Amino acid sequence: MATKIWQKTASNPEGSGAAHSAIVEKFTVGNDVAFDYVLAEFDVLGSLAHCEMLHSIGLLTNEEWKTIEIELKNILIEIAQGNFSIEEGIEDIHSQVEHLLIQRIGEAGKKIHSGRSRNDQVLTDLKLYLKSEIKNILGQTETVFNTLIQLSNQHKETLLPGYTHLQIAMPSSFGLWFGAYAESLVDDMELLLAAYNVTNKSPLGSGAGYGSSFPLDRQLTADLLGFKTLNVNSVYAQMTRGKSEKVLAMAMSGIAATLNKFAYDMCLYLNQNFGFIAFPDTLTTGSSIMPHKKNPDVFEIIRARTNRIQALPNELILLTNNLPSGYHRDFQLTKEGLFPAIQSLKDCLIMFDFMLQHIEIKTDIVKDPKYDYMFSVENVNQQVVDGIPFREAYKNIGLTIESDLFEPNYNLQHSHVGSIGNLGNEQIIASFNEIKAQFI
Amino acid sequence: MATKIWQKTASNPEGSGAAHSAIVEKFTVGNDVAFDYVLAEFDVLGSLAHCEMLHSIGLLTNEEWKTIEIELKNILIEIAQGNFSIEEGIEDIHSQVEHLLIQRIGEAGKKIHSGRSRNDQVLTDLKLYLKSEIKNILGQTETVFNTLIQLSNQHKETLLPGYTHLQIAMPSSFGLWFGAYAESLVDDMELLLAAYNVTNKSPLGSGAGYGSSFPLDRQLTADLLGFKTLNVNSVYAQMTRGKSEKVLAMAMSGIAATLNKFAYDMCLYLNQNFGFIAFPDTLTTGSSIMPHKKNPDVFEIIRARTNRIQALPNELILLTNNLPSGYHRDFQLTKEGLFPAIQSLKDCLIMFDFMLQHIEIKTDIVKDPKYDYMFSVENVNQQVVDGIPFREAYKNIGLTIESDLFEPNYNLQHSHVGSIGNLGNEQIIASFNEIKAQFI
Amino acid sequence: MATKIWQKTASNPEGSGAAHSAIVEKFTVGNDVAFDYVLAEFDVLGSLAHCEMLHSIGLLTNEEWKTIEIELKNILIEIAQGNFSIEEGIEDIHSQVEHLLIQRIGEAGKKIHSGRSRNDQVLTDLKLYLKSEIKNILGQTETVFNTLIQLSNQHKETLLPGYTHLQIAMPSSFGLWFGAYAESLVDDMELLLAAYNVTNKSPLGSGAGYGSSFPLDRQLTADLLGFKTLNVNSVYAQMTRGKSEKVLAMAMSGIAATLNKFAYDMCLYLNQNFGFIAFPDTLTTGSSIMPHKKNPDVFEIIRARTNRIQALPNELILLTNNLPSGYHRDFQLTKEGLFPAIQSLKDCLIMFDFMLQHIEIKTDIVKDPKYDYMFSVENVNQQVVDGIPFREAYKNIGLTIESDLFEPNYNLQHSHVGSIGNLGNEQIIASFNEIKAQFI
Amino acid sequence: MATKIWQKTASNPEGSGAAHSAIVEKFTVGNDVAFDYVLAEFDVLGSLAHCEMLHSIGLLTNEEWKTIEIELKNILIEIAQGNFSIEEGIEDIHSQVEHLLIQRIGEAGKKIHSGRSRNDQVLTDLKLYLKSEIKNILGQTETVFNTLIQLSNQHKETLLPGYTHLQIAMPSSFGLWFGAYAESLVDDMELLLAAYNVTNKSPLGSGAGYGSSFPLDRQLTADLLGFKTLNVNSVYAQMTRGKSEKVLAMAMSGIAATLNKFAYDMCLYLNQNFGFIAFPDTLTTGSSIMPHKKNPDVFEIIRARTNRIQALPNELILLTNNLPSGYHRDFQLTKEGLFPAIQSLKDCLIMFDFMLQHIEIKTDIVKDPKYDYMFSVENVNQQVVDGIPFREAYKNIGLTIESDLFEPNYNLQHSHVGSIGNLGNEQIIASFNEIKAQFI
Repeated sequence: MATKIWQKTASNPEGSGAAHSAIVEKFTVGNDVAFDYVLAEFDVLGSLAHCEMLHSIGLLTNEEWKTIEIELKNILIEIAQGNFSIEEGIEDIHSQVEHLLIQRIGEAGKKIHSGRSRNDQVLTDLKLYLKSEIKNILGQTETVFNTLIQLSNQHKETLLPGYTHLQIAMPSSFGLWFGAYAESLVDDMELLLAAYNVTNKSPLGSGAGYGSSFPLDRQLTADLLGFKTLNVNSVYAQMTRGKSEKVLAMAMSGIAATLNKFAYDMCLYLNQNFGFIAFPDTLTTGSSIMPHKKNPDVFEIIRARTNRIQALPNELILLTNNLPSGYHRDFQLTKEGLFPAIQSLKDCLIMFDFMLQHIEIKTDIVKDPKYDYMFSVENVNQQVVDGIPFREAYKNIGLTIESDLFEPNYNLQHSHVGSIGNLGNEQIIASFNEIKAQFI
Repeated sequence: MATKIWQKTASNPEGSGAAHSAIVEKFTVGNDVAFDYVLAEFDVLGSLAHCEMLHSIGLLTNEEWKTIEIELKNILIEIAQGNFSIEEGIEDIHSQVEHLLIQRIGEAGKKIHSGRSRNDQVLTDLKLYLKSEIKNILGQTETVFNTLIQLSNQHKETLLPGYTHLQIAMPSSFGLWFGAYAESLVDDMELLLAAYNVTNKSPLGSGAGYGSSFPLDRQLTADLLGFKTLNVNSVYAQMTRGKSEKVLAMAMSGIAATLNKFAYDMCLYLNQNFGFIAFPDTLTTGSSIMPHKKNPDVFEIIRARTNRIQALPNELILLTNNLPSGYHRDFQLTKEGLFPAIQSLKDCLIMFDFMLQHIEIKTDIVKDPKYDYMFSVENVNQQVVDGIPFREAYKNIGLTIESDLFEPNYNLQHSHVGSIGNLGNEQIIASFNEIKAQFI
Repeated sequence: MATKIWQKTASNPEGSGAAHSAIVEKFTVGNDVAFDYVLAEFDVLGSLAHCEMLHSIGLLTNEEWKTIEIELKNILIEIAQGNFSIEEGIEDIHSQVEHLLIQRIGEAGKKIHSGRSRNDQVLTDLKLYLKSEIKNILGQTETVFNTLIQLSNQHKETLLPGYTHLQIAMPSSFGLWFGAYAESLVDDMELLLAAYNVTNKSPLGSGAGYGSSFPLDRQLTADLLGFKTLNVNSVYAQMTRGKSEKVLAMAMSGIAATLNKFAYDMCLYLNQNFGFIAFPDTLTTGSSIMPHKKNPDVFEIIRARTNRIQALPNELILLTNNLPSGYHRDFQLTKEGLFPAIQSLKDCLIMFDFMLQHIEIKTDIVKDPKYDYMFSVENVNQQVVDGIPFREAYKNIGLTIESDLFEPNYNLQHSHVGSIGNLGNEQIIASFNEIKAQFI
Repeated sequence: MATKIWQKTASNPEGSGAAHSAIVEKFTVGNDVAFDYVLAEFDVLGSLAHCEMLHSIGLLTNEEWKTIEIELKNILIEIAQGNFSIEEGIEDIHSQVEHLLIQRIGEAGKKIHSGRSRNDQVLTDLKLYLKSEIKNILGQTETVFNTLIQLSNQHKETLLPGYTHLQIAMPSSFGLWFGAYAESLVDDMELLLAAYNVTNKSPLGSGAGYGSSFPLDRQLTADLLGFKTLNVNSVYAQMTRGKSEKVLAMAMSGIAATLNKFAYDMCLYLNQNFGFIAFPDTLTTGSSIMPHKKNPDVFEIIRARTNRIQALPNELILLTNNLPSGYHRDFQLTKEGLFPAIQSLKDCLIMFDFMLQHIEIKTDIVKDPKYDYMFSVENVNQQVVDGIPFREAYKNIGLTIESDLFEPNYNLQHSHVGSIGNLGNEQIIASFNEIKAQFI
């Protein structure tokens, strides 16, 4: 190759090298070690599967494998017990585990890295971690779902004004309102399932994105780790970095959007001009000279948190977009947005459920005369069912209203599925169970 | 209710009312009529199902239903033939269809609106349209997928440098490169399936979001329209406005991200410093005094279009976020971003496939000495397989490089699934077919 | 250079070239011609300045320049009169103008392209256009601002409940409410001024981003076109493509956010549970059987439109991000989001002003007992001013409330600047005028 | 008011209240205390100004004010020395300062809250903090700017290929390249100035957004705190919460975009297919068996960090959008994205400058024959200047290329401002100084 003619732009005095490397490392590593603790358990599980596979293809002796297995399982226990830490000067979780192994079992410890690169190793850790969190999110969503169905059934008789354009429109009910959010969570599980399916594929064995000349048995490690199948193509396996995170972020943003809307309703219904619901004083904040002020801080914070979660897919798109194929270190930073957001979403689900346990319902809302006219559609429909053409019925009721003779009929006869009188909650429960069964 | 004391802020002279209404209508309707043409076919299909159901529950006589059915089918033909238009002064597609019916069959035409509101009607139109477009996108994705698999198989012997950190890293191949994008499209179908499942539920019969006192048979209309199931809860059905669009936008952004990365690779590989691929002169733009300049305009436009598509989920989140439950007219504007984006994505898929049909591959890339060292990992691995410990093998090869004795071995022996020698394309095809089968 | 070995992947039969080029052109040009009409006037102005400069440095003879000048001015008139169109088969505005010139004055027409590239030409067009629209937006914002100040002064005596956490909190007034949005627009002008300053620099003469060997007088063209100064560095001039659009989009999103919040207030205050304001029936939509339903469609559409505008900066970031320096055709698509958004923002400003002209104010809102307690802070403060320590005063008032003896005092004595009794509108007007004066 | 009929949904056993409040507080406070430390200094400065004003209007006696002043200044010293902490059980910085005052000076300490609410207090803290950070960012930008100008001048003779469409296009130079990014930073200061002007207004005295009945002297506190002017209207002052953060985020995203593009260039130019620049081994990461691999980790991390920063405006828009006027606790969470992003941007600026100090430039890049043709435009222009019509000159040079007789002329004669031979750096420096002078 032709000699390159480099013109230095600044003196690089002897001895500054180590200092410079330290500056670079501090900047590039950033907060990453904090996230490595989250991945630690999964990293060791990945190493266990990888070594069992190396043994199966003859790259580890029986003895080496047994020694390694025992020690990795010890490290797993240490992690579970909180006795594991990444030492000063050790770059990441992968190095720390290798370091411990070499300390404890010597040379054999170095062999766990054969046929593997940091790229497929961290990808494997990530996918195992994300799968695990997806199941957690599913479980907590189910808890909220069950509470909502229970509240919907419990309050199915209590009417609530229904709004369109934020204008009083038609009679609704607490049964419909709670049930709607339950069903919303069912649909949200579709995106979560997509995220689960995308993460449920093993990248292990794809190396740095171009495979390896070792005769790795990728199906074996996939099976050992409980992945449904493989990210087959090694180049593609590497492309799932950033993509897996993004798909999960989209799924999380879906659930977040449901909570966001619900939290907005809560803030509105707690407002004194609406006054449809209440919570015990211990769950709101108030003031002794403003006795009716009960600030819905929990719901405002849920709304804000779920908005930050909804901003996450876009952040991950920006982070990973317009990059050619192949690993780029940029991907390291997907964790900075995603990992805290996962925790935040789980907190919001728990908190929402907690609040729902204590919600109080006002039972006579629609008796206020300002809601009278929302019953007028019922009167029109009744006349239509009685055989009067719609436009004539509409005119009739319009006249009773104009002449102040209109009388609301609170005794609604809604019978179709999904209406006040027939919530269809059993069907919604069946849908939840159907999709839940697909997270396998 | 207490009399309100309104203080007018401006005189509202007699006669200005109609002019004012016109200003308001012009502003609020905006471009919406343009999108109504896209929905026209689905709107009439929805009306057919709704009327058949009204007949089944006795709200239309046999004769009324037959007359309506014939005329709606006529309108359907007119739409298909391009003989349908929304007349000046008629607000939207729903009104235009009703208007035509009344013109042609008289009073009975008015009855198609019984038990329905514009809200559930437009939601039904939207879901039918989105379902239809999802299937179109699936089909066009499959076309690109097949082309990629064919190219991957065809060029599986041709090596390509593999990069990490945009630095020359490891041998890759055109087989791996094309195959990777094929597999990427498979994973992208997971989100598209989620969008399909979310849209494949009938909102018809949910009215303005609070159901109806008519004894509607919602399951019948769902079956007639080919929906898999219902948006059960009427309040939730209305919440799917904006949400269905958003979930599809997310799915589209996934496919867009795959095309974006591929387009970026194309621009880079067409760059003369890389020079890995070429296209016929008719597919690039150049200059007679710059004979090697072949501007990759198609891929730059694909990259830009797919970036606009990736911006769409966020736009829809912004549009629909922080709103309490119930219909808001804000939702009307989801179409403005989504509908053109659907067309744009389909164009990009078609164009990508077209370009792939004409791609030319440079066959001797890796013989350039600047790629020599990427083969060094192979030499190290070979020594490991031959029994030499990894770190010793690594040192050995390092020494041959330092002393300029290193000889790249182009005869790679990659055998594991997903590697150069074993692309696993059959497995990838099976995955595509497996997910495709779920769009039912 | 070494011969490249290209392996064709598909036959490229004779004669398909032209058809292929047409496919490529159709895809890459897209809707761009529609935007070229918007730029036409500015393109001709740019050519006039460029040619006067070419003449000044001897690259056009006196006669050539005079002929060109006359004909360009004719074209300018044709554009103003709507008699200009881009002919079928002509790629863009630049080619159309050149084409007309050659038709009309022959060979000399070709010379207008000397020392210029399409890149600096379209950049110049864009900046002239954006500058012009920034001034339009400034003007329309000022109109809304003046209306708000007038309404603020007019209704300064009318009290309004002030909310925190959407809970009734403190007395506010219509004077404060209208004035707040006026002042918000003042701050929004800071970003608009930044956009103005970024666009007010001439890129003309930077060629394709690497300047030219012609001795261009860039200051002369900048002066002729009314730019304050130059984008000096030619490489940077090219970088302003996408960046100018993005900065303006940010400024627009700022104004949009103000309108968005105001529109949200409107929807809330029009809601019957609040009922603070009203509009004439012709400006809302309602129903004869729901006489109190007055849907605030205009404000919902403004809210939605301003949300789409707020999504624009992110779209432009996605479009232009992660690209190395130098022109990429991706930038062509910045127009697709930006140009309609400019029109949409101007529409929203006009419509907001129109609606404000007709707003009706309820004058006795705070007399409703549910607002009584928000006056309690006043009573506490009064006791403090009278010498009673705050915590004691607070306890005193708390006791009157507990024992139902609390009497709200509607006669508020707020005197500090920015409070109910001292709106500070003169100061706000002065701020508006101060920043307006900087758009030069 | 009518008695409300609340139906409890769950038993709320005695004694659970405190536990519930703790759960609520833990969730709502979240990480906020961490950010309070950042604001501590500014909070005390705000209290000093507020108390001096209270004294001036007679709400603090001379003695009270002196005692408070001494103790607040002590606390300021403790903060500066790192001897300040927010105690367990104390909610926030405001409460902690008040708590310390009461501990140390008794009852008088309670008076610092008169005429103030937490809302205007935290807003004041925020604006003082943001102003301070804006100045820090300005200073660090200036450092990078100066380095770039120095490198531009130093390397003005070294040619570099200029690309359009990522295709070799025209000769550029390192002088142009470095200078372009310097000028980009100048334009970025326009948005930063907008952010500065928006934050440079005092909200103090606006209370919870509705002012106060105390006769506060808002101009005095503004002057004492160094604000240029007031957020006049109290309702608007509250609206600047979220807005100030958003405008700064936009300004930061502008600088981030410049660094992002520059980092992308760095990654590309370090790639071996380009090979235009290098850095010492200590600043890149490599491999002994891949001697030419020098991973540009710093620039990848800068690219990723600046992408996260560019995602921030959208996050803040989502957080604050579609909310009616008045304080909402949602605003608390703007700090979570913004505060770390400010630190990250400062880190990136420092790191970029550090790397630039060590950049090495390849001096003979354009001698590679693959760049020959980019000089052809020069030959055409030369003929034009010599009197040959452009199209003829173009044809002439085209013929020399076809017949392989073309000889690049490396002796470029670019003389216009902003071209290789006339960088215009003095003008760029003047622009920087002009805008810098406006941060007052």
